Amino acid sequence: MNEFDLIRRYFAERGVRRDDVPLGIGDDAALLTPPPSQLLAVTVDTLHSGVHFDAGIPAADLGYKALAVNLSDLAAMGAEPAWATLALSLPQVDEAWLTAFAEGFFALAERHGVQLVGGDTTRGPLSVTVQVQGFVPQEKALTRRGARPGDHVFVTGSLGDAGAGLAIEQGRLEFTGPPADFLLARLHRPTPRVGAGLGLRGLATAAIDISDGLAQDLGHILTASGVGAVLDIDHLPLSNALLASGIDRAWRLAVSAGDDYELCFTVPADAGLSVSDGLGCPVTCIGRITAEPGQRWQDVAGVPCEPPPRGWDHFAQGEA
Amino acid sequence: MNEFDLIRRYFAERGVRRDDVPLGIGDDAALLTPPPSQLLAVTVDTLHSGVHFDAGIPAADLGYKALAVNLSDLAAMGAEPAWATLALSLPQVDEAWLTAFAEGFFALAERHGVQLVGGDTTRGPLSVTVQVQGFVPQEKALTRRGARPGDHVFVTGSLGDAGAGLAIEQGRLEFTGPPADFLLARLHRPTPRVGAGLGLRGLATAAIDISDGLAQDLGHILTASGVGAVLDIDHLPLSNALLASGIDRAWRLAVSAGDDYELCFTVPADAGLSVSDGLGCPVTCIGRITAEPGQRWQDVAGVPCEPPPRGWDHFAQGEA
Repeated sequence: MNEFDLIRRYFAERGVRRDDVPLGIGDDAALLTPPPSQLLAVTVDTLHSGVHFDAGIPAADLGYKALAVNLSDLAAMGAEPAWATLALSLPQVDEAWLTAFAEGFFALAERHGVQLVGGDTTRGPLSVTVQVQGFVPQEKALTRRGARPGDHVFVTGSLGDAGAGLAIEQGRLEFTGPPADFLLARLHRPTPRVGAGLGLRGLATAAIDISDGLAQDLGHILTASGVGAVLDIDHLPLSNALLASGIDRAWRLAVSAGDDYELCFTVPADAGLSVSDGLGCPVTCIGRITAEPGQRWQDVAGVPCEPPPRGWDHFAQGEA
Repeated sequence: MNEFDLIRRYFAERGVRRDDVPLGIGDDAALLTPPPSQLLAVTVDTLHSGVHFDAGIPAADLGYKALAVNLSDLAAMGAEPAWATLALSLPQVDEAWLTAFAEGFFALAERHGVQLVGGDTTRGPLSVTVQVQGFVPQEKALTRRGARPGDHVFVTGSLGDAGAGLAIEQGRLEFTGPPADFLLARLHRPTPRVGAGLGLRGLATAAIDISDGLAQDLGHILTASGVGAVLDIDHLPLSNALLASGIDRAWRLAVSAGDDYELCFTVPADAGLSVSDGLGCPVTCIGRITAEPGQRWQDVAGVPCEPPPRGWDHFAQGEA
């Protein structure tokens, strides 16, 4: 048995054991029992060192985040998470690093009842590919396609925090103390809105998770649904920490920075959804769907505002 | 839309369309309809440039092989392939390379009715992670656990070809002409024994695919089943091309070199399996299972032979 076999064994002995996994890690493939009469939702995301995370990220945060970004995709489909596989590439075997990585991964997996059912650990540049699968009853799945004129546009949680956290991490924003820690935690340990996704089954007409920035991701809903939207920048939910950071015109970060992993979704106006509707997290109405295509951003007085382009960086505007 | 979005779109418009994929590439997750009363078999494998393949490998071969090694795992479970996801990491966007990669991938996917249902294309060091899913009726799945004393040990196809192909590719074996081309093709375009895996349902007591070399992989069956085996080196199936290469004691390559992606399986002695039993490929009996643990290799006269250790390299014996 080589060192990579040992790693596999290490991951194989951790975490949730589900009744619908007759055979987990340790054969040529896992064997799983899908529930009758439900759809399987499947998604995969890769995080590369130097591209999606700084090489200095705490290993536990990386383990957590690699799973979180995938659970966020399931949340956006209204799916209940069940199984994960992990393809982990490591330049060398560092047991302390692996212990921490697994700790972060399994902490989140256990919170959502997810069993790691397979994986491949290889020597190579540091990168993590996680695939997750979940269940959603047919006709209850949330897609990007169903937004209709008149629907209200909502987001969960607060926006722009991860973008500010990245600026702090990269030394482009000088800000310390508990609010700065909050912003950094929002970057490294995003909260996949799994409960909200389940609560939106049968309620939302369209949903997406916000990984590339609100304007960009909302754009996918609008395109897929063949509609447009009017958005109110003064209603964007900004955290106290973001406001305390002193960033000028923080709404621009909320609109264009990525990595928040909140949900953006649409509901019929007569659904009467409010922040008190028990989705397990705050939700805020930020606009409404229109028949006219495109996004029109405005302030509370109705004055048009131009959101910065995708990938816009508040702190280094030359960046792509 | 950035260049990586374009790639996603390119992959999304190719290949098989299955009825059990209500929603494929293009939302936060794919939605799939698993068949009633079958198990899902799930496996994932990563190939890294410089580790699992030479950076100069033709892109079409890489696309083919990344899927093939995963289909081989499904074959070893007796599962019928259905769905794949692809996490592709590229240092830069090279359209000619991508065209060839997709050609190789989809050629094999179409042969086995596999639909690409999701993926993630990112900028990073060249690597390919494919996950495949297939179906197998409960109680029909092949695992590593069921070998019993007295069972016969079989392999499909021929062994050692990929190891010789690697030696040719790396300039350690001087050999040219059609037989050399055959050996190289065995390395770059292994044949996943999907049909054989399906044919072995209800017949084989244990199965594994040979990726790390026969001795190593058979060892997994023996350990999982709590048994041992006596193996006959003179019965190992060697291709005419391998024999023509003039390699001394080619059986050692057949036992210890990897990457052949043949199946090794066990069947009860009274099953009467022979090469003519319609598994779609040659099968050869190479030994039998014993109650005594361990592997005992011998020649046709019963003289014990010591197989080289795992990872042994016929051409560079200092290699790990």
